[in-house]
Parts: sequence; C-alpha cells; structure tokens
Amino acid sequence: MGKFLKKHYIMAPGPTPVPNDILTEGAKETIHHRTPQFVSIMEETLESAKYIFQTKHNVYAFASTGTGAMEAAVANLVSPGDKVIVVVAGKFGERWRELCQAYGADIVEIALEWGDAVTPEQIEEALNKNPDAKVVFTTYSETSTGTVIDLEGIARVTKEKDVVLVTDAVSALGAEPLKMDEWGVDLVVTGSQKGLMLPPGLALISLNDKAWGLVEKSRSPRYYFDLRAYRKSYPDNPYTPAVNMIYMLRKALQMIKEEGIENVWERHRILGDATRAAVKALGLELLSKRPGNVVTAVKVPEGIDGKQIPKIMRDKYGVTIAGGQAKLKGKIFRIAHLGYMSPFDTITAISALELTLKELGYEFELGVGVKAAEAVFAKEFIGE
Amino acid sequence: MGKFLKKHYIMAPGPTPVPNDILTEGAKETIHHRTPQFVSIMEETLESAKYIFQTKHNVYAFASTGTGAMEAAVANLVSPGDKVIVVVAGKFGERWRELCQAYGADIVEIALEWGDAVTPEQIEEALNKNPDAKVVFTTYSETSTGTVIDLEGIARVTKEKDVVLVTDAVSALGAEPLKMDEWGVDLVVTGSQKGLMLPPGLALISLNDKAWGLVEKSRSPRYYFDLRAYRKSYPDNPYTPAVNMIYMLRKALQMIKEEGIENVWERHRILGDATRAAVKALGLELLSKRPGNVVTAVKVPEGIDGKQIPKIMRDKYGVTIAGGQAKLKGKIFRIAHLGYMSPFDTITAISALELTLKELGYEFELGVGVKAAEAVFAKEFIGE
Repeated sequence: MGKFLKKHYIMAPGPTPVPNDILTEGAKETIHHRTPQFVSIMEETLESAKYIFQTKHNVYAFASTGTGAMEAAVANLVSPGDKVIVVVAGKFGERWRELCQAYGADIVEIALEWGDAVTPEQIEEALNKNPDAKVVFTTYSETSTGTVIDLEGIARVTKEKDVVLVTDAVSALGAEPLKMDEWGVDLVVTGSQKGLMLPPGLALISLNDKAWGLVEKSRSPRYYFDLRAYRKSYPDNPYTPAVNMIYMLRKALQMIKEEGIENVWERHRILGDATRAAVKALGLELLSKRPGNVVTAVKVPEGIDGKQIPKIMRDKYGVTIAGGQAKLKGKIFRIAHLGYMSPFDTITAISALELTLKELGYEFELGVGVKAAEAVFAKEFIGE
Repeated sequence: MGKFLKKHYIMAPGPTPVPNDILTEGAKETIHHRTPQFVSIMEETLESAKYIFQTKHNVYAFASTGTGAMEAAVANLVSPGDKVIVVVAGKFGERWRELCQAYGADIVEIALEWGDAVTPEQIEEALNKNPDAKVVFTTYSETSTGTVIDLEGIARVTKEKDVVLVTDAVSALGAEPLKMDEWGVDLVVTGSQKGLMLPPGLALISLNDKAWGLVEKSRSPRYYFDLRAYRKSYPDNPYTPAVNMIYMLRKALQMIKEEGIENVWERHRILGDATRAAVKALGLELLSKRPGNVVTAVKVPEGIDGKQIPKIMRDKYGVTIAGGQAKLKGKIFRIAHLGYMSPFDTITAISALELTLKELGYEFELGVGVKAAEAVFAKEFIGE
C-alpha cells in the first residue's frame, strides 16, 4: 500500500484554515497596548469590524472564545428572574439555555428536533404567549446540525415588540448574509476561528440601543464581560487586549473588505451548493431541514460505522471534518465550507470522503461526488 | 457568475509549495556564519544531505540556483578544448550545451527529439566513437518535456570507462529514485526549489573521486564555484553561506528523512500515475516517450489555444501549472507532482484543468479525469 504525504486540511466548522498572510501578522512584534500606536490599531480594527456585522454600532472585542461572548450577552442583558425565550435545536441552542440557567433566568424553551429550524411564526407565537419576555436567544447557524434559521424574518417579528433579539453568529458571521441594522438584530456575537479565518481566542460583540437599554438595567454580576466598561474605554480596551490577535483581525478584515462581504457570502453559498450536490450524488442524506452554507451535516448511511468516517479521513488522508456531537455522535458527519476555503477545498473533502466510504464498504460509483461538485462549479464559474 | 476565493496552488515544476514548517525556519534569527553554532548547523545539514543523494561523498551547498550548480560542474570538470558528450532532448539539455560552449569544450551532441529519452546504448555508442571524451552531461529529469532517463543503465556504461558521468538532478532529486554511489553517478547537481520543498536560491552538488580527478586538472577559470575551496573549508563555507536557507534545508532534510526517501520516491510515482491516468481519461496525450514522476507534459488538444490553459488555470482558479518552453510554447502544458504534494493537490490540478478545458470548448465528460485519478488512489491506499 502506497505511502502518503499527510498535508493537513481543516474542513471542520472551526477552527478553520488561517491564511499565511494572517499568521504572519500574528508573528509581528507585540507592542504595548497602552500606546497611541496600538490604540490607533484598535480603532482602525474595531471600526472596520462594523462592516462585517453590517452595523453602525460599535463592535467590541475581547480575549475569549465564542462562548465568552455568549456569556457576555446573557450577563449584560438578563437579570435573575427575567423571562427569556431560548430556541434549542442543537448543541449551541443548549448552550444558550445553560447560560440562561446559570444566570437565573426564567426560561421559555422552544425545543425543536435537532436539524429543524425555528420559524418567525414560532417566535411570534412564543412572544404572544409570553409578552413579558425580555430577550429571545437564537442560533443563526446551528453548527451541530448544519442548520440556518430565517434570522431576517425573525427580526421582522421582534423589531415591532419590546424584546431584544440576540443571535449567536459564531459560525454564521462571514458565511451567511447578516445585516444587523437593516434587519434589526439587536445583539450579535461571534468568535474568531470561523468565518474570520483567525485562530481561536478572540470574540466580537455588537449591540444596538434597544439592547443597551437592557444592559443598563441588568443586575447580573459581571466584570470582565461588562459591556459598559468596553463602551467607556472604546476604542481602547478596559483590560489587556489580545494584541497579536488584533493584528490578525485587522488583516482578516482587510481581506474580507477586499473580497467584498457579499462575495464572501456568495462564495460560501456556492461551496455549500457543491457539497450538497456531492452528498446527494453519493446517495447520502442531509440531516438539516434548512441547510446552511457554514457546514453540511450528512447522515451516516445504514451499516457503516459513523465514527470511522472522520477518523479515517483525518488519520489516513489528513482531512479533518467533524463527527456528530452529543446525541448525534456516530449518526452524522459534518463537512465545513467555512472561512478561507476555495472550491478545491471542497473537492478535496469530497474526494477524501469518497476514498473513505469506499474503504468502509459503502457502495457507490467512485468519482460521482466530485463530479457533482465540479458540475456546480462549472455552472457558477463558466456558466455551463 | 460566482466569485471565487483565489488560494494559490503551485503545481509547476519549481518553485514548488514550501511547507510552513520550513518557512518558519527561514524566519528564524540570522546568526553569524563564522560561529561554532552555525558551523555545527552546516555540518549537521551537509552530512544529512548525503542521504538524499544516497552517497558517502561530501555534499556542498552554495547560494545560487540550479544553473549555478550546473556551471560549477562544467567549470570544475572541463578545460578548454576537452571533448564532452552532451545529451540534448529539451531546454535543460540545451543549458548543458550552452555552458560547455561558454567554457570552450569540444562538444559531441546527442540531439534527440524533445520528449525522447537517451538510452544507455546511445551513450555507449557515443563513447565508443569518442573514446577521448572526458565527461558525459545528462539531464536526469528533463523538466521541459516531463521525461526521465534510465540513469542507472547509463551509469552502468560509464562506470567501466574513463569518463565522468554528470547528471542534472535539479528537478529529479527527491522525486525519482537516485542512488549516486550504488549506480556510479560521478557528479550530481540539484537546486532547492523542487523536490527539496524550499524557496529558490540554494544549490547542492556532490561528486566522487573519479570526478575529483578532473577537478584537479581543470584549467577553466573559476572562483565562487571552485569546488576545491568548498572541500578545503568543509563543513564551513569559503564565502558567506545563505544562513537562513541552510536552516530551511536542515528542516527539509529532517522531513524527508522522517518520511523515508523510498517513500518520497513512491509518493511521486503514485501522483505521477494518477496524473497520467487522468490525462488519458480526458482523452489527452502525453508528450514524453518515457514520462517521469516530476512533471507530466500533456499535448494541447487540436483546436484549443494552448496558451490559454495555464493562463485560465492561474488567473481564474489560482492553480499555477507550466506551459511549454521554447519550441513547445503553446503546444504542451505541464502539471507537476513535485515536492510537498499530496494526492489532493493532484485532484485539485485535474479539477481545475477540467473546468478550464470545459471553458475552452474541449469536449469530454466533466469529472472523468478526477475519477481516474481517484481510482489510482483507491487502488494504492485501500487496495481496490
């Protein structure tokens, strides 16, 4: 059996591949954060971050992963005993629920099948039944199931009501269209290791005046994540900012601006389409009822050991995809098309998947998945 | 038409992709070259370089590209008026001829069609006709045509005679089996930006006692490339060595040793097989009559503008392959499988080629090339 140079291809929904042009920014000299030089870098970076949220409101950055930003949202908006609506249709919906529990909220849960997407109507119904709810917590892209919700439609519902709409856009930002101000999403959180093409370790958050209204009233204990401190010191950071991560973020934002955010969204749509076409051609089934362009969750076919799929792809071919989480362990596998990815990353993932499925005894015609993905690219890039 | 994230894939026969683990070595502090610290690094590096030449003789490194090492070979072996045999079956055979001309040699040329491979019998015949020839200059892998010669067979001929066998292994080293001592190749030159996975700028040369015999007698002017100076100062360098390139070379040699040189050769063979299978499945024809595993040269099909193929692949898809050189311009294109490359690099190249050929109006079934390459990998890696 032939030997193989194992290059590493990260095709999981975070961390995603970091371009060398960003990595080298991270390798630049760490300067002191309380210098005019660094504060000017912070200002440039945070101002340009508004573009990816499509907002005129401030964006705040702090050293933490996405979960920290989610905690910031809960701690700043929710006081003990406050009624909140939490959508749970996967692992990251559960995380909102756990955070709200930790802060003593009175939780109204919209519990859905994993793979389902909450609808604007379901949100409206829950709000009509609970007019005293102060916050709606949603997951724009539920990474555990590859599902994206109709955030624009949901915002249309909440905009008219005295309720704050929060969304976890940790995996969605930069992959799915997001227009915070135009749609009326009140608070958005994200993390660095996804569509932003950075290593893990930095979280971003932006909120509008409606959300600030609750922040002023929150009685929850908070210090590191107290958004009032960040607003007060903006663009400086109240504590020590993650200097080199900020360098990298600045570069990532330049790259996204150069590509154009609409083009970035469109690129993810095309990679998602190609992945879905390949999966279908291979005779496999999607988990999600409303699949998004962040990650494609695929049901493990009958008779195949699901845990072997990511294992062989990683250990034998160097291609890191994700398996299922929690109750979906062994039942699905997930191929990301997130961040710094080109069509050939998708071709690579499908090709490694085909070799792996062949080894596991799944019956299909070798090459049909890649062919279907190529056909999507041919249509998109040369119009045939 | 969809937009595209243009990642860069170097699939030309040099420079080849440089792994980050090597690039970061190049980013390390430049220390002074006349320190025990650096001389010890030089020694470790040059000693371990013997492994890739499969020789017990010293390997010398200097700052230049492969052409400089070729000049070193000519200047050190050939005196004005010396009779030499030069095989010319492509652009790099021509380079030997030009160098021998520059140094006033009496040239016996074995001129072949570009794409042909010189045989041991042809060498033997030339030597029988020219028993006074002092050197035979060969090109192990003729990069301009994707052809590899039977170097082992040729060495079997020259070993028994009073003639020095020189080979240009600039693109071959690390891709094609090479056993300098066992086969009896007297002088081998190579460059850094090929199988060694380094940026351009460093050349390596190794020679045995038979070759040293001519070096002692050469009356040609030489200074920077005077091999006697390198032998005298070994492992130190007579002039300033390319410090950071040496760091990178050390790392590259570690990586090759870890993979195992036989595995490296075998990997190139598999990628070559897959590329040839894909080309055939696409209904295309190879240029070479004895194709090697460094680069695959493919004839441009009838009715297609050959110059457009590398242009579209590079400008639209970010995949840099090579066109034809000199008399083959526009008539062939060349896809490398050289250096730091995995099966998915080959899949990427074939996929980009398919999209490009489709755009140019060449008729074939989309996906057949990738499928054929995948079938080679399936056979090699999972035995079916």
